[in-house]
Amino acid sequence: MQIEIAFIGMGNVARAFARLLHRQREQLQAAYGLSWNVTGIATYRHGSIACSSGVNLDDCLAVIERGSSLTAVPGCADVGDAGGLLEQCNAHIVFETTPLSLNNGEPATGYIRQALTKGMNVVTANKGPVAFAYAHLRQLAEQHGVQFRFEGTVMDGTPVFNLVEFCLPGTRVLGFAGVLNSTTNIVLSGMESGRSFDDCLNDAKRAGIAELNADYDIDGWDAAVKSVALARVLMGADITPAQVNRTGIREIGSEDLVRAASTGKVIRLIARGRNFNDGIELTVAPEAVPAASGLGSVRGTSNVLILNTDLMGEIAIVENDPTVEQTAYALLSDMLQIHRELSR
Amino acid sequence: MQIEIAFIGMGNVARAFARLLHRQREQLQAAYGLSWNVTGIATYRHGSIACSSGVNLDDCLAVIERGSSLTAVPGCADVGDAGGLLEQCNAHIVFETTPLSLNNGEPATGYIRQALTKGMNVVTANKGPVAFAYAHLRQLAEQHGVQFRFEGTVMDGTPVFNLVEFCLPGTRVLGFAGVLNSTTNIVLSGMESGRSFDDCLNDAKRAGIAELNADYDIDGWDAAVKSVALARVLMGADITPAQVNRTGIREIGSEDLVRAASTGKVIRLIARGRNFNDGIELTVAPEAVPAASGLGSVRGTSNVLILNTDLMGEIAIVENDPTVEQTAYALLSDMLQIHRELSR
Repeated sequence: MQIEIAFIGMGNVARAFARLLHRQREQLQAAYGLSWNVTGIATYRHGSIACSSGVNLDDCLAVIERGSSLTAVPGCADVGDAGGLLEQCNAHIVFETTPLSLNNGEPATGYIRQALTKGMNVVTANKGPVAFAYAHLRQLAEQHGVQFRFEGTVMDGTPVFNLVEFCLPGTRVLGFAGVLNSTTNIVLSGMESGRSFDDCLNDAKRAGIAELNADYDIDGWDAAVKSVALARVLMGADITPAQVNRTGIREIGSEDLVRAASTGKVIRLIARGRNFNDGIELTVAPEAVPAASGLGSVRGTSNVLILNTDLMGEIAIVENDPTVEQTAYALLSDMLQIHRELSR
Repeated sequence: MQIEIAFIGMGNVARAFARLLHRQREQLQAAYGLSWNVTGIATYRHGSIACSSGVNLDDCLAVIERGSSLTAVPGCADVGDAGGLLEQCNAHIVFETTPLSLNNGEPATGYIRQALTKGMNVVTANKGPVAFAYAHLRQLAEQHGVQFRFEGTVMDGTPVFNLVEFCLPGTRVLGFAGVLNSTTNIVLSGMESGRSFDDCLNDAKRAGIAELNADYDIDGWDAAVKSVALARVLMGADITPAQVNRTGIREIGSEDLVRAASTGKVIRLIARGRNFNDGIELTVAPEAVPAASGLGSVRGTSNVLILNTDLMGEIAIVENDPTVEQTAYALLSDMLQIHRELSR
């Protein structure tokens, strides 16, 4: 089966995914009978094109990486922007990887709404649409008989949403606790060896983990948006990032780490969700936790999510030392879930 | 959809599963449209019965718990034994929970072979058939268009096999490391607080975790059989428990724990699988690992499995403080996977 795919956004994640598709082409054909054809790409800075007979993804990546415009690629129509792409690309799956907007999840949510309404499956790596509009987008997808998938939004390709959907049938998620933000974890675990906050943060920036403006990580916004995504999808909450009780790690000094270490503890930025007074309460805050515990033992970029369930008690899933390759795998994993349904 | 189910073995796990089914009856009907009818039960010591119109499971549990024979339950045919049950029960799913035989996985493997050949789906909580006959049983299931499921055999209901099957499509498992045996972990983590090997082992016996003859746990056999199950299913290995490089924890003394603790380490019985010289090598042995690590931070009955994969790097799944309720959930989880296929 040949799947038509289109891209909205062609940044680091989408490019890593494109390279992954390229590398796995033979294996995916052999194992799943899966092949694909790219019918369109929309970018902010490199133009937006569609081509029903398919574009060569490698050529397009080369154009983008040398800073040129995709509209010069032969045989393609200039569709103007993402909206124009969605009118013309007629894809089975749209991969949406535009940057997160913290205020309202736009314009990504609008793109996804448009794609689902036109009967296209959507895979996103963008937390915004899940945190701001999950119930609506899920309902739209159901109405149009397609899927809205987003495994990469919280822990890259580590199964979180799929873990609950496919592997914990019949269970209810009662609450969660996790270390979900890599930048703050690099800073906090780096400071344990006596280095300064700023040195550790610069490490994270140099590694391309933190944004140049890292306030979003340091002040707990990233973890808050991820908590909201988890609470909406896994616990049915109706809550926004602004409603999260949020404390960042700006005030944490080396004396706090020393004090924690004196009782075998470390400080981690912990995201917690729990049922409380008939509502769902979300908290993101630094906490001192035992070093030899599920939350304390993740260091550097590693993440952990502990789920508290009714029938299965407490289970945790950990991602060790992820890179952009794991986020790229999240998109592939979602693509294969959709392919499984398309093949039935 | 009404599913006909039958039981081979009605020990602690099967009884916990029967109680779970009873408690979740309304929820499973509402969420999945799933209801069931028990058409037969085979036991060693309480007789074996079949009844095409269905037996009352609560009544049967009461009979077993007061030490009587099921053959006295009105309206049921005495089928003699498990073989007789499989000839007559005509179930959609057979739940096999007989005790493990370490030598060859029998008689459980024979029962499962018979059930699959007669076109019945099989769910087992018994490691033996997976460790000794996985490839054959899987092939039999495929030939007969049914499923052979065994999520509960390695980490109770914590997703391990389902995690890879459903949530890591397109990835290859390159190796694993885990703490898979609860008894040895109770002993090793208990000894950290200065208690004796025997005291800790007696705790595990009193809690019903260790067998009265705990050699099977202490000498690493349980972890070895689980390693073989993992290596066969996840890595395609053709290996038997006797081929595992196996060292138990009998020789570990408090001085070893003190020495490990002096460098921030703890001792855990670690099961490892890896590709080595074009084959798959399995090792079970006590190792000193950092207390603040994925392997070191699981204490008591808790288990962890770290998977090393090609596309997703390293992920770990942890089960905290499991009881028999989690093993019961494994059977429910497998039942729901089969129900999903039956409903299509």
